[in-house]
Amino acid sequence: MDFSVQQIATLLGGKVLGNSALKINSVSKIQEGLAGSISFMANPKYEQYLYDTQASAVLVSESFVPSKPYQTTLIVVPDAYLAFTKLLEEYQKIATKSKQGIEAPSFQSDSAKWGEGIYLGAFSYLGEGVVLGRNVKIYPQAYIGDNVRVGDDSVIFFGAKLYANSVVGNNCVIHAGAVIGSDGFGFAPQADGSYRAIPQLGNVILGDDVSIGANTTIDCATMGSTIIEQGVKLDNLIQVAHNVKIGKNTVIAAQTGISGSSEIGQNCIVAGQVGIVGHVKVAHKTTILAQSGVSNHIEEAGGAWLGSPALPRSEALRNLVLARNLNKLNKRLLDLEKQLKQDNPTL
Amino acid sequence: MDFSVQQIATLLGGKVLGNSALKINSVSKIQEGLAGSISFMANPKYEQYLYDTQASAVLVSESFVPSKPYQTTLIVVPDAYLAFTKLLEEYQKIATKSKQGIEAPSFQSDSAKWGEGIYLGAFSYLGEGVVLGRNVKIYPQAYIGDNVRVGDDSVIFFGAKLYANSVVGNNCVIHAGAVIGSDGFGFAPQADGSYRAIPQLGNVILGDDVSIGANTTIDCATMGSTIIEQGVKLDNLIQVAHNVKIGKNTVIAAQTGISGSSEIGQNCIVAGQVGIVGHVKVAHKTTILAQSGVSNHIEEAGGAWLGSPALPRSEALRNLVLARNLNKLNKRLLDLEKQLKQDNPTL
Amino acid sequence: MDFSVQQIATLLGGKVLGNSALKINSVSKIQEGLAGSISFMANPKYEQYLYDTQASAVLVSESFVPSKPYQTTLIVVPDAYLAFTKLLEEYQKIATKSKQGIEAPSFQSDSAKWGEGIYLGAFSYLGEGVVLGRNVKIYPQAYIGDNVRVGDDSVIFFGAKLYANSVVGNNCVIHAGAVIGSDGFGFAPQADGSYRAIPQLGNVILGDDVSIGANTTIDCATMGSTIIEQGVKLDNLIQVAHNVKIGKNTVIAAQTGISGSSEIGQNCIVAGQVGIVGHVKVAHKTTILAQSGVSNHIEEAGGAWLGSPALPRSEALRNLVLARNLNKLNKRLLDLEKQLKQDNPTL
Repeated sequence: MDFSVQQIATLLGGKVLGNSALKINSVSKIQEGLAGSISFMANPKYEQYLYDTQASAVLVSESFVPSKPYQTTLIVVPDAYLAFTKLLEEYQKIATKSKQGIEAPSFQSDSAKWGEGIYLGAFSYLGEGVVLGRNVKIYPQAYIGDNVRVGDDSVIFFGAKLYANSVVGNNCVIHAGAVIGSDGFGFAPQADGSYRAIPQLGNVILGDDVSIGANTTIDCATMGSTIIEQGVKLDNLIQVAHNVKIGKNTVIAAQTGISGSSEIGQNCIVAGQVGIVGHVKVAHKTTILAQSGVSNHIEEAGGAWLGSPALPRSEALRNLVLARNLNKLNKRLLDLEKQLKQDNPTL
Repeated sequence: MDFSVQQIATLLGGKVLGNSALKINSVSKIQEGLAGSISFMANPKYEQYLYDTQASAVLVSESFVPSKPYQTTLIVVPDAYLAFTKLLEEYQKIATKSKQGIEAPSFQSDSAKWGEGIYLGAFSYLGEGVVLGRNVKIYPQAYIGDNVRVGDDSVIFFGAKLYANSVVGNNCVIHAGAVIGSDGFGFAPQADGSYRAIPQLGNVILGDDVSIGANTTIDCATMGSTIIEQGVKLDNLIQVAHNVKIGKNTVIAAQTGISGSSEIGQNCIVAGQVGIVGHVKVAHKTTILAQSGVSNHIEEAGGAWLGSPALPRSEALRNLVLARNLNKLNKRLLDLEKQLKQDNPTL
Repeated sequence: MDFSVQQIATLLGGKVLGNSALKINSVSKIQEGLAGSISFMANPKYEQYLYDTQASAVLVSESFVPSKPYQTTLIVVPDAYLAFTKLLEEYQKIATKSKQGIEAPSFQSDSAKWGEGIYLGAFSYLGEGVVLGRNVKIYPQAYIGDNVRVGDDSVIFFGAKLYANSVVGNNCVIHAGAVIGSDGFGFAPQADGSYRAIPQLGNVILGDDVSIGANTTIDCATMGSTIIEQGVKLDNLIQVAHNVKIGKNTVIAAQTGISGSSEIGQNCIVAGQVGIVGHVKVAHKTTILAQSGVSNHIEEAGGAWLGSPALPRSEALRNLVLARNLNKLNKRLLDLEKQLKQDNPTL
């Protein structure tokens, strides 16, 4: 980004109060503003920072009336927060649009196909039968296995790995180092104590608008598909085992693990470092708090769960308070024992 | 896979009831069967699905007698489950056998050596002194550091990284993004509060038939070797620290971490998200349940452990029940206090 | 390493007792010594091993007087432990110094720049505007995004990925598969239940002497920077979310996760599998024990914390003891109830 204040004001439909020729090359929080950056002030709580911010320009809402002199240039818009969000999106669009074309050396099998607007970074690999949609970006060192399909406008970052037969929807983002379609962890015990791998022949299907975090791993199904539905957002370092299904618009934070064949409902929120055992169903709109362990079905939609094993949040919190005060409970018991002994000296 | 029903029946020693010319190109569960797929029905519980499955063919056991008309083609074999397992293994053999030869560009040092039947994918790297056995598959973008040795029939998937001097046995599988031989986490505190890295000069040794999951990390020993014995199976995103030893045929689920110098016995089963502190020994055939934290030696073989800190399972479960009912315990105590006060109004 | 005993003695300022012409090619613990290796004996506890070690040479301190005949060659130095440490460091210096030059094929944008002594491994990628200092080593398959800066003497191992605009100080080590600068996990809920990605425009800054473990992930800031200060050491598979700040010389063990915008003080020690929620501050010199969950500010410096939610260590331990003996507490309560009933038969 290297625009004038005036260009940004025009983009956002705003009015400039101050120097409209200043050049802007980054964004900042108002309390950390640097020269050359643009910031915003939407919450009156942050008004104090406006008067001495170093940011070259600040977006403010029409309703805002300054109570003191200020040094920065203002861009006045109907809603400062919305305008800033729009600015960020435009900025990111420009930043990511720039990658196009095929860098050399990269590897494309003879049978791989792709649509217009493609980016194939250096050292990326397209296996047999790969089909990529329009405006797909395959960053350097990404691996796209045989027969993988990727929908329009999806981005596969550097070093992400898609095993054969994976299916990725439109408008997905797969971050660096993520692994999609690794073997499910299935081994049959043998008479001599060793294990024999059960062939894992299924695949992984990601719906549209799915986001997968860095170094997250999603195993293929033993048969059929591990399914991540439309709009699901997975953070970094998450483990999704074979044959799991995650419902539409569910959001899961980092380092959570979901064991084989479990089904998470739609619009759930799962915090970080949660563990979910295999073969359970979690109802829609469930919230699971950090570090919890879910070991049973959660059948009622809309609840919040906490602890390992997870209990309804209010019950878990009550137990936590009691557990934290076990010494007091112990003291009360000692008092009673003492008192009873006094009452019954023969005991 | 693109075989006729007859070809599959011949492979499995079965008899066709129905259209033996149908083409099969995938496998499915009977309740999810699609046209072109083959399924199996071994458990009478699933018989209901046989009568309206869309699978083109279904393997059934000789003992099975249909109770209704069906649309699909049957292949009758002595044991449907065993036959299906054999089919899966044959399928996987064909699928993975197909990769052979050296793709360009890839990097092989002058001193690297390999046996017959090799696959070296594009953008893979073989350092100085690397020795690979027969039928080894090094997928694209894998890194094989200086002096690494890999035994016959082992598969190193895309993007896996083996630091210098790692040793991999025969018939091992290392999944995408796994890192073998990274520096142990050893730092000596200095007088000024900073830390100085302790050189990590050891290596990692994997026995035969070891499987390492996607994005799992195994650190090298400070001196000597981090040892993963024959038949060990590690799931995804596991951390194995320096100088750990994991005994033969032990199986460990995703996101578990084992700290430095600990020794896990043979034929243990460790569930997901378990933590094991450093310098402890875990006896053979120990089971450790999910999210447990092992902070002491486990000396008796064959036990099951739960909780953080981990206790014998039955003890941990009893405590969990009591902990979950702390409010009831509190209520009983209140009742006693109240009653004693009534009995002794002067209190 | 392939030196004579005499060469090593000269390097360490020691005196040889025995065969000074022997060749040394590895290091070992004295109890595991092999022919061709050098070991050390600093602790009298290990003296017993000296008399039958297979190591070709052993470093001993001047103060040591053998009590029995021995087979190995001794190198006598003022302090055996310090001399061994020096030897290890020299060894590692030689081992890593060997990598220099630019391997082909590798990718360097026209605008990328680097200092003398560079190593650019095969299949490594340098984006637009990249600036690398002197003696930087970029191992094969590493990705250095647009405008990334890396200071002198830093090492980026195979397959590590640095998103655009990351800043790495001098003398840093980033291990294989680590991801620096992936998008922060920020999504704005929409009226229809879906989520819209909030653009993540900040970066990651690593100070000097920082070490990042294998497959660890550090997200970029939403705006501004995620900051890892000088001397911080992160183990493997750690998650650091957007806008986190980790203070100087803090050490964090594997699989720990730190949520968005939290600040960890200087000289803290965080054990493995710890979770820290978002927007909290942890005071300097705090110790957090394994598997703990920090859900609030820790305001007093120098404390030790345990449990989930984390409590001061002594309090947490006391509660753990009580919790482990809940059955005894329950038994005492039953006794009281029984006794009171006997005293008041009408109840």
